[in-house]
Amino acid sequence: MSKGLPKRSEDYSLWYNELVKRADLAENSAVRGCMVIKPYGYSIWEKIQAQLDIMFKETGHSNAYFPLFIPKSYLSKEASHIEGFAKECAVVTHYRLKNSEDGKSVIVDPDAKLEEELIVRPTSETVIWSTYKNWIQSYRDLPLLVNQWANVVRWEMRTRLFLRTSEFLWQEGHTAHATKQEAIDETVQMMNVYAQFAQEFMALPVVKGVKTENERFAGAVDTYCIEAMMQDGKALQAGTSHFLGQNFAKAFDVKFATKEGGLEYVWGTSWGVSTRLMGALIMAHSDDNGLVLPPKLAPIQVVIIPIYRGDAELEILSIKAKEIMAKLKAKGISVKFDNRDTFKPGWKFAEYELKGVPIRIALGPRDLENNSLEIARRDTLTKETIHLDGVILEDYIIGLLDEIQENIYQKAFSFKNEMTTEADTWEEFQSILDNKGGFVSAHWDGTTATEEKIKELSKATIRCIPLDRKEEEGKCILTGQPSSGRVLFARAY
Amino acid sequence: MSKGLPKRSEDYSLWYNELVKRADLAENSAVRGCMVIKPYGYSIWEKIQAQLDIMFKETGHSNAYFPLFIPKSYLSKEASHIEGFAKECAVVTHYRLKNSEDGKSVIVDPDAKLEEELIVRPTSETVIWSTYKNWIQSYRDLPLLVNQWANVVRWEMRTRLFLRTSEFLWQEGHTAHATKQEAIDETVQMMNVYAQFAQEFMALPVVKGVKTENERFAGAVDTYCIEAMMQDGKALQAGTSHFLGQNFAKAFDVKFATKEGGLEYVWGTSWGVSTRLMGALIMAHSDDNGLVLPPKLAPIQVVIIPIYRGDAELEILSIKAKEIMAKLKAKGISVKFDNRDTFKPGWKFAEYELKGVPIRIALGPRDLENNSLEIARRDTLTKETIHLDGVILEDYIIGLLDEIQENIYQKAFSFKNEMTTEADTWEEFQSILDNKGGFVSAHWDGTTATEEKIKELSKATIRCIPLDRKEEEGKCILTGQPSSGRVLFARAY
Repeated sequence: MSKGLPKRSEDYSLWYNELVKRADLAENSAVRGCMVIKPYGYSIWEKIQAQLDIMFKETGHSNAYFPLFIPKSYLSKEASHIEGFAKECAVVTHYRLKNSEDGKSVIVDPDAKLEEELIVRPTSETVIWSTYKNWIQSYRDLPLLVNQWANVVRWEMRTRLFLRTSEFLWQEGHTAHATKQEAIDETVQMMNVYAQFAQEFMALPVVKGVKTENERFAGAVDTYCIEAMMQDGKALQAGTSHFLGQNFAKAFDVKFATKEGGLEYVWGTSWGVSTRLMGALIMAHSDDNGLVLPPKLAPIQVVIIPIYRGDAELEILSIKAKEIMAKLKAKGISVKFDNRDTFKPGWKFAEYELKGVPIRIALGPRDLENNSLEIARRDTLTKETIHLDGVILEDYIIGLLDEIQENIYQKAFSFKNEMTTEADTWEEFQSILDNKGGFVSAHWDGTTATEEKIKELSKATIRCIPLDRKEEEGKCILTGQPSSGRVLFARAY
Repeated sequence: MSKGLPKRSEDYSLWYNELVKRADLAENSAVRGCMVIKPYGYSIWEKIQAQLDIMFKETGHSNAYFPLFIPKSYLSKEASHIEGFAKECAVVTHYRLKNSEDGKSVIVDPDAKLEEELIVRPTSETVIWSTYKNWIQSYRDLPLLVNQWANVVRWEMRTRLFLRTSEFLWQEGHTAHATKQEAIDETVQMMNVYAQFAQEFMALPVVKGVKTENERFAGAVDTYCIEAMMQDGKALQAGTSHFLGQNFAKAFDVKFATKEGGLEYVWGTSWGVSTRLMGALIMAHSDDNGLVLPPKLAPIQVVIIPIYRGDAELEILSIKAKEIMAKLKAKGISVKFDNRDTFKPGWKFAEYELKGVPIRIALGPRDLENNSLEIARRDTLTKETIHLDGVILEDYIIGLLDEIQENIYQKAFSFKNEMTTEADTWEEFQSILDNKGGFVSAHWDGTTATEEKIKELSKATIRCIPLDRKEEEGKCILTGQPSSGRVLFARAY
């Protein structure tokens, strides 16, 4: 199966595309820019969803569902919002098909034109704030903490599976608050939830920061983000959390009666992560043999492969395998016994390497004699024979899964640190970008003009102003103008 | 809160609409025919989803995700399919907005016209079978057992919250099989899964049956269904499971290499339930005080309301309430302690009645003295004081939740039986429909012409040919032609 997977060092982009397809994660559909998420890929997304959903609920949020369609006039109510999204809107103009006059084809019925065009939601701030107007009257109705799991559409000309698709799946939180500070606290809290999820579950270290004005969400006052580093030295924005100020409250006239008897505009936030996380997960950890999945998100954590000749041997091994499965399942470990006789063990080994299963147990007749198992780790591609006398297998496996999770994280963490370089001159800056890649920590004069110029010259954008940056006097790498701290540049997905 | 909820006996339809809104389940949105599912309503849907998802996985299905958009030409490939859906298709024709020339408004960019119009999926057979063509080569790839949770759009002129909306949420299973019998077995299995879910979790008794040719899904060879009876005597189709024969395999040229070395078309099924189930759940059990939720789908199963004067009393009661909560939560019971001081107990009682919380515990200072609790049941609107000496509260509550679940089911079961009447003449048939409503079990000559005529005269449709019907010679109630068994008529949602 993994035969012919391109090498990362030769063509990272091709490696990624092929891996996504061959590991049965996703594929392009007949509809331009829209993907099919295949069952194995979707089962990883389900794990991501389930864990995030727990974390959202623990922080007081409830799920709801808002319409797919947004009247064009709604989308236009917040000026910078429509400007940001106008160029990528799928527009519904008709609501019926009919047979053509010659009866030979089906056409759009010109008599079934909508009075007002509907936009397929690219994000739901406008339709949600138009609803919040009716839900919020008084301070007693606040905070309003709602999340939605949904599909959204942003018409893209250049698409890549998971990373940039015309339709994608995501969650979007939309909250309303009585005070500015509370809304800012919520924005920061959700960025932290995303960072915690990325680190603990995806084994993905991230930089937390704030976007520059130029990179902000269309309609936000401030955009917080988490940025991750991929193996090819390009950055990937993995999640954003927006402080909306009173922008959408003003656009949709959402006011509330304060405790003190006044009437004020509500403060808002929105925050989201999408199936893009799948792209980050794949690119951050995988290798030339295939996927490397952190155990906490692996749909299959342990696979047992029997090594046998003939049905009689298989039958004996099956008894042992089922014993092991029962023990592991009782501890909440997802385990698969692959007893298909249509494939050889070697083929199966490659298959589960390709699919990133963290632990592979091979079980042969000699193992039964010796009371042993061969246990292989996907992350290190190492294997060892474990003698089971005196060993509680399920505890051993739990420990090993934890170790793998931690190892994958540490590897990514070291990589991210290695790939973060300070540059103090324009030459250094360019040289790092061209020869090494990664994050470049450098001074910038704070103007959009300089930011744009740097992007034009180097294809690097300011990923964020890191929240933990130190105050440091310096000079802008491009203009030499004074700066009070470094920002993080990178070429990015 | 429940003040002014219309009575079912006076205006069932208004009662339903008001209940859906006041119990915070859903509301109409600014987009014609599309609803907003509010957090409380959505939390019930989440419980429905979670349980169905378990049942789908137990029967071997995996989830995946297919595109929202379907090229018009795809939808047209299966003749009866396009005929069934053409009249309700939302059509995307453009992919960009721009500023008007005078700069005063945002318009659809005429230069951004799609080459081929895209249909917002009304159902996904076509886009899925076009994908299956690539996934299925050999008998080894079969069966293919996939489900999708998604939104779909069918443009409706007359809409009602949950029952009929232009956009709705659903799941759609799409399976492919090597043999006709296996596909039929799958179709029947999924109808049985739906029936089991309706009965065990929704406390909703259903009739299992097959649709007549006239009522079949557009593109199916046979449609199996579950039909439920609402309190106003109208039937509601709660789920359908379609045997597609080789129709979609032929339309999309999906063939497989058989074990014997031949090449054959694949056999298909599809099956779905939607947010319509929410409508059934509400209408089947609720009363003039509000929702009645079966405990297995209630987001809050037990609410504790303190009866107190002053903060000191509340504090003492809170300690006891938290003890109770901890005990119940440890048993997996969802419990809420409503200690808000902005509302009086009486108001809270009405609120949780409106929201259908199965068990209400009132806790006052005298209860602490007597080691007692006042426990009220939503289904019977009865209450009693329970002395806790020697009682294990959590076991008592678990028993009571089971009893409530069973009682709600039995009530609906008796009602459905009462509302199923045999008719042997046209006069009887009409009289039952006009005076009593419900299912009318009657002979029919088996022709579509007669079925249509009966519908025209009586507004009743054939809900199904029940799977458990007896062979019985009889005469069609309209034409007097011979019939070999009764079918089930009703006016329906």
